[in-house]
Amino acid sequence: MKQVIVTRSDLKLGKGKLAAHVAHASLEGYKEAKRRNAEIVEEWEREGQRKIVVKVKDESEMLELFEKAKRFVPCALIRDAGLTQIEPGTLTCIAIGPWKDEEVDRLTKDLKLL
Amino acid sequence: MKQVIVTRSDLKLGKGKLAAHVAHASLEGYKEAKRRNAEIVEEWEREGQRKIVVKVKDESEMLELFEKAKRFVPCALIRDAGLTQIEPGTLTCIAIGPWKDEEVDRLTKDLKLL
Repeated sequence: MKQVIVTRSDLKLGKGKLAAHVAHASLEGYKEAKRRNAEIVEEWEREGQRKIVVKVKDESEMLELFEKAKRFVPCALIRDAGLTQIEPGTLTCIAIGPWKDEEVDRLTKDLKLL
Repeated sequence: MKQVIVTRSDLKLGKGKLAAHVAHASLEGYKEAKRRNAEIVEEWEREGQRKIVVKVKDESEMLELFEKAKRFVPCALIRDAGLTQIEPGTLTCIAIGPWKDEEVDRLTKDLKLL
């Protein structure tokens, strides 16, 4: 089991803000996956809750991935409240899973690590 | 309500790995706080689940803060599995809360943003 969190290369976020958004996505992905299949999430937790942070080029690549991924795997899409650094509503991260490796890999295997 | 996640300045983690550890801490802090007081956590979620990422100098400063903080606020301490970049068991992050602002602030107000 794994969770992949996808960030945008074109947003030049400070590393603290970036980490906060990745955490936001991770938690929302966790809750969404748990609603769908708590056993998969519990197995992910027992295995050490593997999280992998990757990147896409920009918002359109992120949205395209999200639209595809959510048909197969529990996902979460994070938008910024816009209080600092970026415009309100900016799409910052998506979480894919936690879910079964093979289904997550099929969607994310070509993405580069952040 | 807020959650503060504390990182170490002396660990030179890549930003993807750093973000994954912050997410790990955030999720464990969420679960710990929820066990203690689900209403506080729900209020934090309703308010937009504010997360603030800060830094301390090194492991000893982190441990000292953790020992103090856990007497007042639900906390989580994250150690690395050591598969990449750092030694197994390295302490990487702590989460303080989500919990009431005034109690979290009392512990973290002097820490710098990451």
